Amino acid sequence: MQRFALAVTAAAIALTAALPAAAQFQRPDDAVKYRKGAFFVMGQHFSRIGAMAQGRVPFDAAAATANAEIVQTLSALPFTAFLDGTDRGDTRALPKIWTERAQFDAGAKKMQEEVAKLVTAAKANDLEQLKAAFGATGQSCKACHDTYRKD
Amino acid sequence: MQRFALAVTAAAIALTAALPAAAQFQRPDDAVKYRKGAFFVMGQHFSRIGAMAQGRVPFDAAAATANAEIVQTLSALPFTAFLDGTDRGDTRALPKIWTERAQFDAGAKKMQEEVAKLVTAAKANDLEQLKAAFGATGQSCKACHDTYRKD
Repeated sequence: MQRFALAVTAAAIALTAALPAAAQFQRPDDAVKYRKGAFFVMGQHFSRIGAMAQGRVPFDAAAATANAEIVQTLSALPFTAFLDGTDRGDTRALPKIWTERAQFDAGAKKMQEEVAKLVTAAKANDLEQLKAAFGATGQSCKACHDTYRKD
Repeated sequence: MQRFALAVTAAAIALTAALPAAAQFQRPDDAVKYRKGAFFVMGQHFSRIGAMAQGRVPFDAAAATANAEIVQTLSALPFTAFLDGTDRGDTRALPKIWTERAQFDAGAKKMQEEVAKLVTAAKANDLEQLKAAFGATGQSCKACHDTYRKD
């Protein structure tokens, strides 16, 4: 299972590496709208896994896996859109994203690693493993929100 | 190649089938925000393929494939969010989506089929095939926009 998680992480990193070459936005506002859209859709699918982890809906490994894989695909996207000049407009992104970029990127990577474990847990059809992975992923989201997002 | 396209389409259908059970939105506004976010992110990645198909950036099969696969993942999502009661608010969705649902769903399916061909073309590393698939996918987007979206 560990080997699988590493493979998934490698795939996510390969995907991220393949994107920047074509990662062009016509306007700064498009980058803001893009990252907000990606985060929102990701959050909706993450919350559906949360509903299972927290016992509000029955655990369904197929649905958890479908949701976790969507979260994983989306988790690579928004960080390509925090470009210079996109710290203004309709955004809650704090300016220190651009002055603490290494820490911000490390937070993104941490989240992506936790999401890979979430996919593994869902595929394993193991609710306890899913609960643990959901909690750890949620913490990795919160860490950046607390530091880099306006209330 | 045809067999691969069918496999991809089957995977997209399986994904769509796995989603509705957990496809819950807390508020109608969340469903609107979700589908708009999914469409916007999808459109950005589709336009990056368009830049290659139209010769504005060099053709790069790896980047085209990464973008096409993101388009494919996203193409399954927004149609789960055209729920009853989500025809108002900050949306350009026309009311006839809800009175012509079978035609609307057929348009969505047509687009998903064209996107599967787009993934196949990108993976085939064939620019002419990609141009054709990009054009056909764009037409399938436009068909629904013309009929079911406010100007």
